[in-house]
Amino acid sequence: MLGTSKKRVAILSPVAWRTPPRRYGAWETVASNIAEGLVARGWDVTLFATGDSVTSARLHAVVERGYEEDRSIDPKVAEYLHIPEVFERAAEFDLIHSHYDFMALAYSRLVKTPVLTTIHGFSSPQIMAVYRKYRDGYFVSVSDSDRAPDLNYVATVYNGIDLSLYPFQAAGGDDLVFLGRIHPDKGVHLAIEVAHRSGRRLVIAGVIQDQAYFDEQVKPHVDDRNVLYVGPVDVAGKNDLFTRAYAVLHLNTIPERFGLVLVEANATGAPVIAMDLGSCREVIRDGETGFLVNSADEAAARLEQVPEIDRAACRQRVERHFSTDTMVEAYECVYATIFEQ
Amino acid sequence: MLGTSKKRVAILSPVAWRTPPRRYGAWETVASNIAEGLVARGWDVTLFATGDSVTSARLHAVVERGYEEDRSIDPKVAEYLHIPEVFERAAEFDLIHSHYDFMALAYSRLVKTPVLTTIHGFSSPQIMAVYRKYRDGYFVSVSDSDRAPDLNYVATVYNGIDLSLYPFQAAGGDDLVFLGRIHPDKGVHLAIEVAHRSGRRLVIAGVIQDQAYFDEQVKPHVDDRNVLYVGPVDVAGKNDLFTRAYAVLHLNTIPERFGLVLVEANATGAPVIAMDLGSCREVIRDGETGFLVNSADEAAARLEQVPEIDRAACRQRVERHFSTDTMVEAYECVYATIFEQ
Repeated sequence: MLGTSKKRVAILSPVAWRTPPRRYGAWETVASNIAEGLVARGWDVTLFATGDSVTSARLHAVVERGYEEDRSIDPKVAEYLHIPEVFERAAEFDLIHSHYDFMALAYSRLVKTPVLTTIHGFSSPQIMAVYRKYRDGYFVSVSDSDRAPDLNYVATVYNGIDLSLYPFQAAGGDDLVFLGRIHPDKGVHLAIEVAHRSGRRLVIAGVIQDQAYFDEQVKPHVDDRNVLYVGPVDVAGKNDLFTRAYAVLHLNTIPERFGLVLVEANATGAPVIAMDLGSCREVIRDGETGFLVNSADEAAARLEQVPEIDRAACRQRVERHFSTDTMVEAYECVYATIFEQ
Repeated sequence: MLGTSKKRVAILSPVAWRTPPRRYGAWETVASNIAEGLVARGWDVTLFATGDSVTSARLHAVVERGYEEDRSIDPKVAEYLHIPEVFERAAEFDLIHSHYDFMALAYSRLVKTPVLTTIHGFSSPQIMAVYRKYRDGYFVSVSDSDRAPDLNYVATVYNGIDLSLYPFQAAGGDDLVFLGRIHPDKGVHLAIEVAHRSGRRLVIAGVIQDQAYFDEQVKPHVDDRNVLYVGPVDVAGKNDLFTRAYAVLHLNTIPERFGLVLVEANATGAPVIAMDLGSCREVIRDGETGFLVNSADEAAARLEQVPEIDRAACRQRVERHFSTDTMVEAYECVYATIFEQ
C-alpha cells in the first residue's frame, strides 16, 4: 500500500447480482476482486453491495439480494436506495470507487470526496451525455480500446481475476467451448458455425440474455451430441468446461470491452480464438495465447494451429497482466494520483 | 408573499412532458401553476423543466423536450441529467420544491437546502421503501386520502388550476364526457356502461396508456354515434368537451389521488359523477358539485338528478378551494413552516 496512513476506500458495486456473483456478473466480479485485493494489501475498505454479498471488507447493504436474482425487487427502486448510501456517507471515505455506470456520476458533484469511476462499458449512445457532463471526474478504462473521447482518464486498468479460482491444467480436451451471455454481440452463432465446419463438439454455457436469438439461432443447433447448451455455470462449472476445451471460441460481433472469460480461460491454459474487435487484441497475444481472427472462416482455419499454443505461456501472461494483484497495484497507483491532486 | 426578503425557490418539474404540458401531464401542470403563482406573488423562482417549457420564472433546462414527446430521448438518461442539476445548484436556493417523485429524494440529504416534495401519487408498493428512508424530509400530500403512514407531512395542499383557462359556462350540453388516461384505473369501461344504460352519447378523450385495455374494452364500443373517442385534447379541447357535457363521468376503479379533471370540469360549471374512492370525496361535494357513487348502476341512476346541480356553485367551490391562488397561498404557508425550522 502506498503512503503511511490507512486510507478509507468505498467500493460501490452494482446490485444486479451478489458481489461476487454466483455465476454471471462481470462488474460485480471485478468490484469484488478489487475489494478483496485492497483489504489484503491493508486498505480500509467498505463494500457497498447486496446484503448477501461475501467479502472480507466491511459490507454496507440496503438491498438484500440482486434484482436479477430476486424478481420481487424493483431495479429502479434498488438503484435509488443503493447508490445514495455511499454518497450520504462520503465524509467517512478518502475515495469513492464506483462501478455503477453513469448513474453514480449524478451524485458525484454533491460530495467533497473524490469519485473514481471504472467504466466497464458504454451501454448505449444516449448515456454518453451523462459522461460528457461529468467528464472532469476521474475515470479508469478497462481496456485502451474502450475509451470515449474527452473523459478525464487516469489510466487503463485491465480487469484481474483471482488466479486461485482458475488453476492451471497442463492438458485440455477435444471440445470447443463458448462461455458468455447468449446474445448476438457474443457471436454464439459464429461459434456454432465453426463447430459445424470443424466437426468438433461445441459446449455452450451462459445466461440467455436474448431469448429470441437463443430460440432462433442457437437452440435449433443444440442436439446434445455435437452442440450442447448447459446453461449458466459457476466457477467450478467454468473450470470443468476449460478442462474439456480444445479451444475457447469468443467470436464477438461488436468491439469487446474487456472479456473476462478470455483471461479465465487462459489462466487454466486454455487457448482462446477471439474476434479481433475491441479489447481482444489487448488480452490475447495472437499466436501466443490464442488467435485473433476476423471471421468464422478464419477461426475454423486456425483450429489446426491450436496445438502450437504453449499452455504454460497462457497462464504466465495472465499471472503477469491480469491477476487481482496486478490490477490492485494498478488501482493503488490511480488512487495515489488522485490523492496527490 | 410572507416575510420581507425575496426568497429563492427552485421548482423541480418532471421531464416527461413540457411544463406546462401541451395536453396530458398533471404533475407538470401543477408544477407550472405553482411556479407561475409564486412569480406573480413576488418570489424569485427558477423552474427546472424541459427546454421547451413556457414560464415567467427563470427556466433551467438540460433536457430539451419531454421524453414522452420525443422518443429519441432515453427517459433514464434524461432523469439522471435533469434531477442533479437542481441539487448541484442547491446553494443558490432557499428551498427546493420537488415534483419528481422518489427519485429526487435520493439527492436530498446531500444538500443543505431544505427539500419539499409534493407527492402526486405513489406509483407502486416498491417505491415506498424510498419514501420510508427519507420520511423525515418535508412532504405535501395532494389530498388527505393519498397519504402514506409515517411521512413527515407538512400539509395537504389541493392542486389548483388557472381559472382563466376554464371559463364558466352557464349551460352545458347533452353528452356524457370521459376525460383522462385510457387505463382500467380510470374506469372508461364503466363510463361506456353508463352511456349504454342511459342512452346518452359518450365522448371519450385522453391519451391511451393501456393499449390492450383500449383495444379490448373501449374500441369495440366506439361507433362514432353513441360512443366517440377523440384522442388526447388540449385546454381548448377540454373546454369544448365541457361545453357539450351534461355530466363528466369519472368512475375510477382505484382510489383517486387528486383528480385534476374534476376541478377543471367543475370550474366550467360541469357537474361530475365520480366514484367515491380516494380523493373524489374531497374534491366533489355530493349533491352540490356532482355526485359520489359506488357503481356504474348508481352513476346511471344519478343522471336524472344532474339538473339539480347548481352550475354556479360548482364554479364557486373551485374558485374557493382549487384555484392557483388558493394553492400558492397554501404553499406559502408550507414554505414558511419550513423556513421557521
